[in-house]
Amino acid sequence: MKKNNFSPKGFLFAGIRAEVKKKPGKDLGLIFSENLASASGVFTQNRFLSAPVIISKQRLKAGKAQAILVNSGNANCGLGKAGIILAQKTSRALSKKLSIPESSILLASTGVIGEPFPAGKIVKAIPALVSNLNPAHYLDFAEAIMTTDKIEKISHQSLKIENKKVSILGIAKGAGMIHPQMATMLGFVLTDAEISPKLLKSLLKETAEQSFNRITIDGDTSTNDTIFALANGKSKVKITPNSQALRIFKKALFQVCFELAKMIVADGEGVTRWFYVQVKGAKTKPDAEKIARRIANSPLVKTAIYASDPNWGRIIAGAGNAGVRFDPNQTSLFLIDKNGENKLEIFKNGARSKSYQGLKAEKIASRIMKKSGFKILFELKEGKEKFEMLSADFSEEYVRINADYRS
Amino acid sequence: MKKNNFSPKGFLFAGIRAEVKKKPGKDLGLIFSENLASASGVFTQNRFLSAPVIISKQRLKAGKAQAILVNSGNANCGLGKAGIILAQKTSRALSKKLSIPESSILLASTGVIGEPFPAGKIVKAIPALVSNLNPAHYLDFAEAIMTTDKIEKISHQSLKIENKKVSILGIAKGAGMIHPQMATMLGFVLTDAEISPKLLKSLLKETAEQSFNRITIDGDTSTNDTIFALANGKSKVKITPNSQALRIFKKALFQVCFELAKMIVADGEGVTRWFYVQVKGAKTKPDAEKIARRIANSPLVKTAIYASDPNWGRIIAGAGNAGVRFDPNQTSLFLIDKNGENKLEIFKNGARSKSYQGLKAEKIASRIMKKSGFKILFELKEGKEKFEMLSADFSEEYVRINADYRS
Repeated sequence: MKKNNFSPKGFLFAGIRAEVKKKPGKDLGLIFSENLASASGVFTQNRFLSAPVIISKQRLKAGKAQAILVNSGNANCGLGKAGIILAQKTSRALSKKLSIPESSILLASTGVIGEPFPAGKIVKAIPALVSNLNPAHYLDFAEAIMTTDKIEKISHQSLKIENKKVSILGIAKGAGMIHPQMATMLGFVLTDAEISPKLLKSLLKETAEQSFNRITIDGDTSTNDTIFALANGKSKVKITPNSQALRIFKKALFQVCFELAKMIVADGEGVTRWFYVQVKGAKTKPDAEKIARRIANSPLVKTAIYASDPNWGRIIAGAGNAGVRFDPNQTSLFLIDKNGENKLEIFKNGARSKSYQGLKAEKIASRIMKKSGFKILFELKEGKEKFEMLSADFSEEYVRINADYRS
Repeated sequence: MKKNNFSPKGFLFAGIRAEVKKKPGKDLGLIFSENLASASGVFTQNRFLSAPVIISKQRLKAGKAQAILVNSGNANCGLGKAGIILAQKTSRALSKKLSIPESSILLASTGVIGEPFPAGKIVKAIPALVSNLNPAHYLDFAEAIMTTDKIEKISHQSLKIENKKVSILGIAKGAGMIHPQMATMLGFVLTDAEISPKLLKSLLKETAEQSFNRITIDGDTSTNDTIFALANGKSKVKITPNSQALRIFKKALFQVCFELAKMIVADGEGVTRWFYVQVKGAKTKPDAEKIARRIANSPLVKTAIYASDPNWGRIIAGAGNAGVRFDPNQTSLFLIDKNGENKLEIFKNGARSKSYQGLKAEKIASRIMKKSGFKILFELKEGKEKFEMLSADFSEEYVRINADYRS
């Protein structure tokens, strides 16, 4: 397969070193669409927002964009107005170099909070960055946005709609709070389908909700979390509301985003294993979500999973701590292996299951927990709502990475 | 000082081994008041409740109790109705032995969830337990309720009211989620003051709110958390509403509980340092509490503190994640040393403070963070409400302890 097979039509990528990062490696990335594309974004819910998030939110109101400039090594956050001015300096320089309006440039940053933002270094590197633009350079881009991610995160779907090829390319970086500072989840979804800004917005919102927003590493979200989507229409395939094309496209878009989300969890700091937490039978969706998040984020559950310890008391105690009213005597807990073949009933109607007794049962449970992709299923009998999360275990390595002094 | 100086009049204590715990050591404790005492309790908010919590809640409706039976090594939780029946078996045996009504006996358990509750072992040990009763045996009791606590937790205040001596004795065990299973915060507050059940209830609720409920080790609360208070009136000092005596007593009660709470945090699993998180200037009390809890529970903040790393980006990001609306440009962050002498302004009005620049400033911050008792102060300008939490750092040791397989 040729390297640029993955690239949707009309998109170019670049990734170079601008010396924003102290450590060696690429740290400045650019995505460029040959034409003005429909654009949308979803952002962190944190009350503290980085300068690039504030600026990009504003620019996305037009629903259009042509380029995305991303740096790693500095979050451009916690700097007040100065941060905004410095970020604008970089997009102004890029706008001149690319001869496109500054308002069509989106920005994202990831790295240290509160350190002076080296806009000068970025501005200086822009000519080299633009020269580097190439449809095949998405791996360079993926590398440039990494902080302590161990691998580049790329996902791709190619689909046939009306006998024409449509591509979706997703590129992301880690969501774990990463050495040497809190890091950020960044995601970029690019397609050559033609989609109105309005439809793209609802598609991205719904898809992100079911992928990026369902993963947790340590329960913290950063000041910089950003997902951008660009659709430039170069495939000549139009995706319209309520169409068959939309159904096909939506499914592929979800696959791209969900695969990226899984990669992010699996590459989390000190993660040795990832797993699903599913809650069924809740009265309301928010109830199901609260319980799932509480179990998925519990340090006690996460350390038990690291040890493959079927310590189910921690799971039900986590569920009971979610601030949701339910009848504990109407709850059950299952452990399901990654292939969905072995469904172990551990807890039933408020008591340890009769079929789950003794050391042998615990050994089976422990074996299920040893392989990434297993599922913790907590069932209530309050209603019909459900929610699923992706989580990862908690190892000594997590503490080691996060306790390391910034240097 | 004689050992039994700490004991309020009319209280006897016992602590022996009944072989509930697999590991060696005492595991069965008893508190006995010579007369029927006013009694109150506060319990976990978890939806899953252990059998002793369910039973004690019911018995406390009468506002009176005379004995408290506590075991470590088994939580008596997650067993359904069987757990209730087994717990009742132990209090029935004790009631016969002590010749007091079963309804005047409170119960508490801490240990493994979901394992068969060894009521037989406890019933068998009751004669030896009752023989062990002695006003000086509170240390034996404190030892018997420990799981992996490293030290016994005892706090005492002796006060003069109307020229008569009143004693308050507090005994507790760790709140950290402790190897080999989730453990529990248990607290016992005993006084020879005379207090009506109604006043005792409101006193305990308010005091627990400001002490035990303001500590966090890993954000999880157990299915068994229990604080009991008994007041037997043996000092002949009556505490009545709106009296000077009440003000004096309340202050001493708070000191006892707050000291126990600090001991619990300091003895948390893998804890190397504890600290305060204070939030000021919030619009509402729940807002202040949400922000303080979010900062206090953030694994990122806790690992940074373990490393004495003044990684303030994590603190403001934690505040921003609390789900509270506030203007980030009107927030400030301070680090205050344990003596309250050095108040370092780190973040002001949404940007890094001008007085906090460079490596030298970070070194001062790091030095402040090295000593237990320092304070993180996060200030908003939304209103006048405040909240303070006690938290502890997060070390590799925490993961190691909690990942260890139960054995």
